[in-house]
Amino acid sequence: MNLFLDSPLNALKEYVACASVSADSNFHEGLVAAQNFAQAGLSQLGFEVDLIETPGNPIILGTRGDPSWPRLVIYGHYDVQPPDPLDLWTSEPFHAVERNGRLYGRGAADNKGPQIVHMSALARVFKENPNYPVHITYLIEGEEEIGSPSFRGFLEKNKERLKGDMLLVSDTGSPGPDQLVVTTGLRGLCALEVNVFGPKQDLHSGVHGGALYNPLQALMRICSSLHDKDGKVTVPGFYDNVRPPEKWELDELSKLPITEKSYAEFLGVQKFFPPPGYSALEGIRFCPTLELNGVGGGYQGEGSKTVIPAEAFAKITCRLVPDQKADDIAQKVENALIAASPPEIRIEVKSKGGGDPYVLIPPGKPGSSGEESDFMIKAFTQAETCIRNNFGTKPIFLREGGSIPIIQDLKEVAGLDSLMVGLFTNEDNLHAPDESFHLGIMNKAIDSFEEFFRGLV
Amino acid sequence: MNLFLDSPLNALKEYVACASVSADSNFHEGLVAAQNFAQAGLSQLGFEVDLIETPGNPIILGTRGDPSWPRLVIYGHYDVQPPDPLDLWTSEPFHAVERNGRLYGRGAADNKGPQIVHMSALARVFKENPNYPVHITYLIEGEEEIGSPSFRGFLEKNKERLKGDMLLVSDTGSPGPDQLVVTTGLRGLCALEVNVFGPKQDLHSGVHGGALYNPLQALMRICSSLHDKDGKVTVPGFYDNVRPPEKWELDELSKLPITEKSYAEFLGVQKFFPPPGYSALEGIRFCPTLELNGVGGGYQGEGSKTVIPAEAFAKITCRLVPDQKADDIAQKVENALIAASPPEIRIEVKSKGGGDPYVLIPPGKPGSSGEESDFMIKAFTQAETCIRNNFGTKPIFLREGGSIPIIQDLKEVAGLDSLMVGLFTNEDNLHAPDESFHLGIMNKAIDSFEEFFRGLV
Repeated sequence: MNLFLDSPLNALKEYVACASVSADSNFHEGLVAAQNFAQAGLSQLGFEVDLIETPGNPIILGTRGDPSWPRLVIYGHYDVQPPDPLDLWTSEPFHAVERNGRLYGRGAADNKGPQIVHMSALARVFKENPNYPVHITYLIEGEEEIGSPSFRGFLEKNKERLKGDMLLVSDTGSPGPDQLVVTTGLRGLCALEVNVFGPKQDLHSGVHGGALYNPLQALMRICSSLHDKDGKVTVPGFYDNVRPPEKWELDELSKLPITEKSYAEFLGVQKFFPPPGYSALEGIRFCPTLELNGVGGGYQGEGSKTVIPAEAFAKITCRLVPDQKADDIAQKVENALIAASPPEIRIEVKSKGGGDPYVLIPPGKPGSSGEESDFMIKAFTQAETCIRNNFGTKPIFLREGGSIPIIQDLKEVAGLDSLMVGLFTNEDNLHAPDESFHLGIMNKAIDSFEEFFRGLV
Repeated sequence: MNLFLDSPLNALKEYVACASVSADSNFHEGLVAAQNFAQAGLSQLGFEVDLIETPGNPIILGTRGDPSWPRLVIYGHYDVQPPDPLDLWTSEPFHAVERNGRLYGRGAADNKGPQIVHMSALARVFKENPNYPVHITYLIEGEEEIGSPSFRGFLEKNKERLKGDMLLVSDTGSPGPDQLVVTTGLRGLCALEVNVFGPKQDLHSGVHGGALYNPLQALMRICSSLHDKDGKVTVPGFYDNVRPPEKWELDELSKLPITEKSYAEFLGVQKFFPPPGYSALEGIRFCPTLELNGVGGGYQGEGSKTVIPAEAFAKITCRLVPDQKADDIAQKVENALIAASPPEIRIEVKSKGGGDPYVLIPPGKPGSSGEESDFMIKAFTQAETCIRNNFGTKPIFLREGGSIPIIQDLKEVAGLDSLMVGLFTNEDNLHAPDESFHLGIMNKAIDSFEEFFRGLV
């Protein structure tokens, strides 16, 4: 039996059951299970599969077809975000459960569901036409959720194998089950971790308070210096290379079936706080950000403990837009952190990697290069048609706020531009408790991609 | 056999084995064990013991002797600080172990060791003179480490039973094993917890970053507004009622066998950060503080998680000096926190109790009332003599930075002034990993208090 033909839903449940959290070494077993699942799936589809070792988690590389055919590269990732806070999940994160037309589980939408969509569509196409004349390179990595630290090295070593006419990715979002988005750009990312150190150990705040700089107080001072009161990032040079949105991008944005009011209700906030000069819906797509993702130090338990802690930390990520560069921004933020640090404490800033932003002006849009290959022009046209046929509306072409740093890397190193079809929605709770994948989208997307792949030849 | 006569050290080991953490409800069993130990100990010494129920942990009240005799009240607490961070302990926190002339364990110094000192000295005195003619009220509470929330209510209900000529306490510090301090004042305390709330759940910082105020960013802004760059607290009115130190207090401070250099080495800091106008050794005794004891929010695990958290918290305590009032300062800090809070997030501030500062100008010092009872004058003279006889040096009379809020409550409600003999030192690591009690101090202190109690009659 072929799981992708018989029950894509069961395939997804099996894949979610592999607890493949890349950020936490306790989940090693789940990562290996997810690798095995993806490898076996590609083999079943007729791919020749290699497991490429890296300094981190291995990368799965499957190939199928004659190298002289038009070449499509498909990307996915088998790792997922950590599941915590666990107590906010309605059902177990790694035991996928169907409720209200959705499948709940960590990774169901990001990125396991979309991978099952691609594989299931390919299974149908290959069943009908075992010699389907497109050469496909299928790439599934295991470190996307921690910033793909091994991917760049893999890419440099294997770039000849990755050459192709176009990259297909479904790891982006759409506004809802009746309106898909073709993503034309992604924010970049750079991550930093700051540690501040004060006394050599935790101290009694009564006996010693009044003598020394509390590391938590220093951390508050340092981190609060990174934004002004309007929310603008104060790091010198942060906005130097920001490219404003094109007119056609703002026009496409206006087609989104989302209002500021419905978006605020969805988030559960009373009042937005976008960067000055932008709306909330613009801010999440066209503006860079500097966010604190985690801060901690001192007593974390119930009640109180009157302690001056020895150290404190902050985990920071910046989202970057064209033409910011990840290395440049990481350096600027590091400089700003060190400059804001008082001399009474010791600070350590570690850069945790990242990736540059990506943008493509699609074939036919104002400002496009006009030099796209026939295969790519056909793919974009075909995507628009198949989505309209199956979802009832044409897709909107729009940049989105998330990051897939390897998209820009693949562009730079292997020359690949991307067709990104967004299959998850805000309601899918990515990176949060109760992540889920919409089964209506899943089924229509399998039909759409079946039609899409057929139409490429 | 009598544990206090035969082996005070074994008595202390037994007491430490009761894991009586009051800040964390998981330690309920240890609290009950510590109550039982203290109750049994007082009974063995000939006290009639009542366990007084409160809304929180019960208070042990023992009485011995004829009510017409001079009346001494002794105070201790059977609860201890939480043991975390556990990985920084050399040996188990609740399995006391002897190393290098010290007994290591949570509560060994704060406050179980000093209680064993008092009880062991009394055991010797009572053995020789079963009708020792001082009426003693022995009071041991179980909520000192969480700010004694039930004590004030207990006090109002039982104030007649607590009347006396003087309170004896050993829950303060001394500079080292050859130099004790008689503590003449304690800082007050007020505790607050701040929670800030943003979106209704944790959000993907790529998909949604740029639209809303990150609660961690808001918390940094709010908390960093509480101090200026020189470390002065900016809360309006915070310093209004601060009484500067007396000349004799600065003279006594100069006798301390501690240099700024040795103190900095002990703490492991390169550079002090006392409030403007004060030295570090003055700052910890004569200045109020506002400290962050714990801050948390967002991802706390290994690696990174690109999340905008739904909420974040800070635990704050202020140390107060005469004539600041805990309720007044808590209200002022709460107002400042709310005033600093941006409208895009929701803030909750909870006052977690506290107590006013205490100061006594000892009999004979400039500025003393001259109205002290004969018993109290005798007690202070006797303390000075016995300490000199056993430790080789006269004690220094000095205010200290820690807080025992109930000392001021006992003064206000029951009219009791305190003789506080400091038995722990900086090296004892109070409230920190590897807490210990110096066994040389323990033994000399038992001898000193035996002589002290004998000399009172």
